[in-house]
Amino acid sequence: LNDRPAPASGEKLFYLPIHDVEECFKGERLLVVTDERLAELFGRSFSGSKLLVVPEGERAKSWHSLSSLFDDFVRLGVDRSWNLLALGGGSVSDLAGFAAHLWMRGISFSCAPTTLLAMVDASLGGKNGVDFRGYKNALGSFQRPECIFCDVSALSSLDPVQFASGLAEAVKHAVIDGESYFSFLESLLAEGGGAGAFSHPRCGAESLKRLVTESQRIKLAIVDADPFEKGRRRVLNLGHSFGHALELETGLPHGFSVSLGMALALRYALRGGLIEDDERSRILRLLAGFGLPVDLSLLADGALRARVSASLFMDKKREGATMNFVLPRGIGHVETARIPVEALRSFLEEAWK
Amino acid sequence: LNDRPAPASGEKLFYLPIHDVEECFKGERLLVVTDERLAELFGRSFSGSKLLVVPEGERAKSWHSLSSLFDDFVRLGVDRSWNLLALGGGSVSDLAGFAAHLWMRGISFSCAPTTLLAMVDASLGGKNGVDFRGYKNALGSFQRPECIFCDVSALSSLDPVQFASGLAEAVKHAVIDGESYFSFLESLLAEGGGAGAFSHPRCGAESLKRLVTESQRIKLAIVDADPFEKGRRRVLNLGHSFGHALELETGLPHGFSVSLGMALALRYALRGGLIEDDERSRILRLLAGFGLPVDLSLLADGALRARVSASLFMDKKREGATMNFVLPRGIGHVETARIPVEALRSFLEEAWK
Repeated sequence: LNDRPAPASGEKLFYLPIHDVEECFKGERLLVVTDERLAELFGRSFSGSKLLVVPEGERAKSWHSLSSLFDDFVRLGVDRSWNLLALGGGSVSDLAGFAAHLWMRGISFSCAPTTLLAMVDASLGGKNGVDFRGYKNALGSFQRPECIFCDVSALSSLDPVQFASGLAEAVKHAVIDGESYFSFLESLLAEGGGAGAFSHPRCGAESLKRLVTESQRIKLAIVDADPFEKGRRRVLNLGHSFGHALELETGLPHGFSVSLGMALALRYALRGGLIEDDERSRILRLLAGFGLPVDLSLLADGALRARVSASLFMDKKREGATMNFVLPRGIGHVETARIPVEALRSFLEEAWK
Repeated sequence: LNDRPAPASGEKLFYLPIHDVEECFKGERLLVVTDERLAELFGRSFSGSKLLVVPEGERAKSWHSLSSLFDDFVRLGVDRSWNLLALGGGSVSDLAGFAAHLWMRGISFSCAPTTLLAMVDASLGGKNGVDFRGYKNALGSFQRPECIFCDVSALSSLDPVQFASGLAEAVKHAVIDGESYFSFLESLLAEGGGAGAFSHPRCGAESLKRLVTESQRIKLAIVDADPFEKGRRRVLNLGHSFGHALELETGLPHGFSVSLGMALALRYALRGGLIEDDERSRILRLLAGFGLPVDLSLLADGALRARVSASLFMDKKREGATMNFVLPRGIGHVETARIPVEALRSFLEEAWK
């Protein structure tokens, strides 16, 4: 790790057991931020480091958690010679990466993602942050981690819901990237025993490794070309405008909300004649095959719809009366467009019945 | 302002009356962050904008102020289409720039500095942040403003102490840059009526304009070459390690603390045979001529010395047992070196009597 690149130049990927990560920081100060469950599971692998425990899940991403972390930094005397490692899912790395970026204008930060979602998506690309007064990721920055340590075998400790949540981002990557990765994901369904019956213990180690590395490759290529999301990187928000609103209002897991968000974006594109119906169906079948929800009638509740509709107005992608919205036009064909928020709202009224 | 550069590419400088700044944002949403005194002085010049008032001076730079600003952003529905303008001194721009950088991962940010210190130094280069639990600038980031609006004539509203405080940074720039700017500053002393008698109403408008623009040129050239302070930019911290510790413990104005910090750094360099005594004396004479303190016996107090010494350990420039320390070796000859914190502490014991 001695010749670490400048943070702006992108994260280095390592594939090794979690137990071997501490060794990579030998001779340096290491501070591990993790949650309670993971501290119990993996704490012994970081016996030479300081451990800080934050709340599990989205609750980690609060102004209060951030303030508590800084209190701990003061207590421990953390300075720029320290390395911070986020051990956990996307919530842990979003919080810890944000804290590392701000403390003393930036200390070294790396991730050991323990969920599929974090490994293929959240830990990569440097978006970090916390929620504020109910606004998801209202505060945050772009600061890419130095190293990502991936223990693919540790993913088997995931429950099926968490695993499926990560698959939603993999499908998103495939829709953006194109046929080759998309049909690979479809082949996993057969491997897993057919649509609806897919679950991760049935996904072989080789397939899992390929899924992780391909998704990482796709995401990093996009991020490298546009690190601050001024243009092309926006396509990675496919399904996320509706998705974030749903996540916020329903508490559904991130990937489930993104899956529903993609379903909505697909329907929006279909209505505008921007995608063929069979392409759309093929994407929906893959999502559903992975056990992800695609049918909003699950959530048929007028009050909920009104809240989701309102929270679209709080989305970061909104600028004044329009929003940068990601349009899926086919597998390997995703675009962004500025769409009036009102058009999205009235679509929601009509589509969500 | 329509073709604003990406924030990473450096700030654009404009010289115009404060009253004309609002016009530059015509047709856009403008949010002005300022303090109470300035809101009274200049509020009418921003009648078409939202005004947010923060505490005066260093008290603005607190975790609490930051949280309050974000509450205001929520209340006003601030999104990425808004522009934030810091109207004030370095404390206001440090706080507002930090808030702008974090809100929705970054909204447009510009400065209208109202002090000499902010105009020649604090508002330039993108260092922002707040204090945390007594650590000065413990939290912050590098994010350069888009535009700096300089109303040089408004500096005449400064009290002499604030003006002298800014001159300390100008002297620092001159020591870094070399003979030409340094002797220009010396010539101001004659213009002002001789050493010790200098004050800003005696500094002619032309001289003041040259002082502002030369200091800006020197600082921006250094920042452009090393925006994230990985190397050469560190020389801009001349006098700031001791200076921040003094500022924190005594409450002296920033420039006064930096002046004493430079005096200490000069003595440290002299003791190590790194600077000629007549070069050192010439720098001290200029500082003193501008009404800045250079004699630590003013602060001869054992308890204070112990606190200043302790707070060196909390400086961001410390990494483990050493610190990046800036050594003045002559006019136009400034270097950085890694020096053991203990060596600086024992020097302080010996030097400060």
